[in-house]
Amino acid sequence: MYFIDNPKITDPKGYTAAATRAGFKRKRKDLCIIKSAVPARCSAKFTRNMVKAAPVLAGMKTLKNSGNMLQALIVNSGNANAGTGSQGMQDVAETVAILSQKSGVPENLILASSTGVIGEFLDMEKMKVGLDAIAHRLSVDGGAGCAEAILTTDTVEKSFGVKIDIQGKEVTICGITKGSGMIQPNMATTLAFVTSDADIDHGLLEQIFTDCVNRSYNMITVDGHTSTNDTALIMTNGLAGNPTIQTGTPEAKLFQAALMALMLEMAKSIVKDGEGATKFVTVSVKQADTFENAKKMAFGIANSALVKTAIFGEDPNWGRILSAAGMVDVEFDPGKADLQINDVYIYQNGNPVTLTKTEKQKLMTPVKLDIILNVYTGAESAMVYTSDLSYEYVRINAEYHT
Amino acid sequence: MYFIDNPKITDPKGYTAAATRAGFKRKRKDLCIIKSAVPARCSAKFTRNMVKAAPVLAGMKTLKNSGNMLQALIVNSGNANAGTGSQGMQDVAETVAILSQKSGVPENLILASSTGVIGEFLDMEKMKVGLDAIAHRLSVDGGAGCAEAILTTDTVEKSFGVKIDIQGKEVTICGITKGSGMIQPNMATTLAFVTSDADIDHGLLEQIFTDCVNRSYNMITVDGHTSTNDTALIMTNGLAGNPTIQTGTPEAKLFQAALMALMLEMAKSIVKDGEGATKFVTVSVKQADTFENAKKMAFGIANSALVKTAIFGEDPNWGRILSAAGMVDVEFDPGKADLQINDVYIYQNGNPVTLTKTEKQKLMTPVKLDIILNVYTGAESAMVYTSDLSYEYVRINAEYHT
Repeated sequence: MYFIDNPKITDPKGYTAAATRAGFKRKRKDLCIIKSAVPARCSAKFTRNMVKAAPVLAGMKTLKNSGNMLQALIVNSGNANAGTGSQGMQDVAETVAILSQKSGVPENLILASSTGVIGEFLDMEKMKVGLDAIAHRLSVDGGAGCAEAILTTDTVEKSFGVKIDIQGKEVTICGITKGSGMIQPNMATTLAFVTSDADIDHGLLEQIFTDCVNRSYNMITVDGHTSTNDTALIMTNGLAGNPTIQTGTPEAKLFQAALMALMLEMAKSIVKDGEGATKFVTVSVKQADTFENAKKMAFGIANSALVKTAIFGEDPNWGRILSAAGMVDVEFDPGKADLQINDVYIYQNGNPVTLTKTEKQKLMTPVKLDIILNVYTGAESAMVYTSDLSYEYVRINAEYHT
Repeated sequence: MYFIDNPKITDPKGYTAAATRAGFKRKRKDLCIIKSAVPARCSAKFTRNMVKAAPVLAGMKTLKNSGNMLQALIVNSGNANAGTGSQGMQDVAETVAILSQKSGVPENLILASSTGVIGEFLDMEKMKVGLDAIAHRLSVDGGAGCAEAILTTDTVEKSFGVKIDIQGKEVTICGITKGSGMIQPNMATTLAFVTSDADIDHGLLEQIFTDCVNRSYNMITVDGHTSTNDTALIMTNGLAGNPTIQTGTPEAKLFQAALMALMLEMAKSIVKDGEGATKFVTVSVKQADTFENAKKMAFGIANSALVKTAIFGEDPNWGRILSAAGMVDVEFDPGKADLQINDVYIYQNGNPVTLTKTEKQKLMTPVKLDIILNVYTGAESAMVYTSDLSYEYVRINAEYHT
C-alpha cells in the first residue's frame, strides 16, 4: 500500500467530475459533480443530529430505495440547506432531477449533499446556472477542482489517495473531505467522499466502512458540535477488474487497512485545519473498563474549553485535564491514575510529579501534543484527535455572519 | 420576603467571621472563617466530578460523622488543594486541627473548603500565619470580608440576603458565592455558602436545599466544566427563635420560596460575572417529554462554542442553536419545532421565518437574551442560564498560568 502524490477523487478507474463557482460563496469554487461510469456499491453514514439537513434526509431515502447503489454525487458549499423545511426538500428534488436530465443518470442513483450556512434557502437560480455550466463537461481532470468546491472555512484542500494490489490488479481509493468548524462527527464529519474502483462484496464494504468511520471520523473533535449535514460516503464501482473481495480473506484485510489509513489521514487533516487551530492534540485514555468509557473520557478532555485554552496558552494546567476526564460520569479512582504529556509523567499514582516550572512549560511548546491518561480500570483504550481554542476561533465564529 | 441591602454572611443571628490576605493570591483577601455560636443543622452538596479535591473528600466524611451538624467553616482561595494526593488530605486535617485549637470548635464540626489552581500543594506556612491572624478576632462585622476572600477570577463580590417572618420571628438567610470559570455545577458551583438563623427540621432542610440547588446552581453554565471543588452548603443555627419549621406547613413553603429566590440570585450572579461574559443568556426548552430531556437540550445549546461565539458576535445564527439542541441524543421533530429569540419567532413549525437582515441583527443586540425552543413532545420545560464566549474568555484562560 502506498499514498499517491497529488491525488484526485477521479484517480480510481471510471470516475469523472467537474467543479465550478456557482456563486453560493464569494470567492471559491462551490459546486461539483462526481460520477461513476457504472452504478457503484455504496456505504454511507449520516449525522445523528436530530436536526438533519434536507439533502441528508433525501439521501438516506435515496440509498434505501436503491439498495445502497449510487452513480453520481452533486455537492455544494456555501449553503447547508438545513432548517429549511419543505422548501428545502423540494430544492433537493429539483437539483437531482436537473442533474439526471443532463447526465442521463437515473434520479434514484444520484445523491445531493450540501454544507455551509444553516437556515437559508438554496438559491436555485445559481444552482441551475452552475449545473448548466458543468453537467456536460465531466472529465477525469475535472476531479482536481472538487476538493476546493466542498470547503467552507477550511484554509487548505484535503485530498488523499492510496493504491493497493489485489491479486495482480491495481486498486485505487481516493477521498476528499472538509472541516473545519461544527466538528464532532457522529457518524462522519461534515463531508467525506471516497471513491474506489475496487470490486468488493457489498456487505463487506458496509462492514469495513462502518469500522473505518468509527475509528477515524468519529474520533475527532474541533468544537464538540455535531453538524446537521455530516455525510461520509464511499463508492466502489468494480472497474479495477479484481476478483470480488470477500469477507475473511487477506484481500479484505488489505482493503480495510488501506481504507483505514486513508480515512485517518482525511480525519486528521480536518483537525489540523480546525478553526483557529495552533496545535494538533492526541488525547489517549488507556486501561479503561470499556472502549465507550475511554472514548467518553477522551472526548471530555478534548472538548473542554478550559483544556483547549490552556493548550493554546501553552500552560501545563494538568488539573484541567484530569478534572475534565472526571466530569463525564465514568467511574475511576483519580488516586490511582497517571497522566503524561508527551511521554513525561506530570501526575502519577494519584500524586503530582515534581517538575520545575521550566520543565512543565517546555512540555507544552510542541505543535503536536500527546496527552495520555491511564485510569487502570480495565484493558480498553481510545484515542481522540483535537485542536486548541484560540482567539482566532472566536474571531472566525463571532464574525461568520448569517 | 425582601432582599437586604448590603448583606453579609454574618447577618443571621449568632454568626461571626473574619477574613484576611494570607498570601495564596497576590492582591486580594484569600482566607476566611465563618462560625456559628452553636452547632448548626447543615445540608451540603458536593461536586459529582470523579476528581474531588481533598477538602471535598474530607468535608463529606466530616458531615457524615457529625450527622450533618456544622459549626465552623474555613475557606481559602488561590489554591484548590485538588489533585494533591495524600499530602492534600494531611493539609486539610492539619488546617482543621489548628482552627479547632484556636476557636474551641470541635474538629468534627469544622469544614474546610478551597478554590483556585488545581494540582499544587497548599502552602501550610501561609495557612498557619493566616489562621493566627484571624482565628481570635471573629466578629459580626468580619462577615463583610468573606465575600472577597472566596473569589478567584471573579470581578465582583457576590453577597445576597433575604428576610422573612416566621410566626412573628424575623428569620434571615444570607449567602456568598463565587464563579467565574470551570462553571457547570453538578451539585453546586464552585462555592456557595448560606447561613441562616432559622430553626428548621433537619430532614426538611435537606429536602428544600436539594431542590433549591437543583433549580439554581445546577442550571447554570459558563464553560461546561464541572469543577473538582464544587460545594454548596447551608447552615441553620435556630437562633431566630421561631418555632421549628415543619414539613408541609405554610412556613416551610415560605422558607423554601425565600431560599430559592436567594439562591437563584446567587447562581445568576455567577453567570453575569462569567469569565469574559458580555451577555446574559436564558435558554428555555419548552414542552419536552421530560424535565431531564429539556435540561439536556438546554445545556446542549448553552454549552455550544458555536452558539456562544455567535452570541458574542451578535449574529442571529439560529441554525447553530437548533442543531445544538439536536445533538444531545434527545428525540424530537425539528420539522415541528419553534424557536424564539426575545419573543420574536425566527423558526416556526419547522420553517424559517422571513425577517429582514436588520430585523434579525436587532434581535441580538440586548445584553440580556432569551432563547426559547419549543419542541412539542410533552409538557416539561427547563431553563438554563449562561454567558457568551469572547476573546476575553480565551485571554483569561490561556494566560491564567499554573
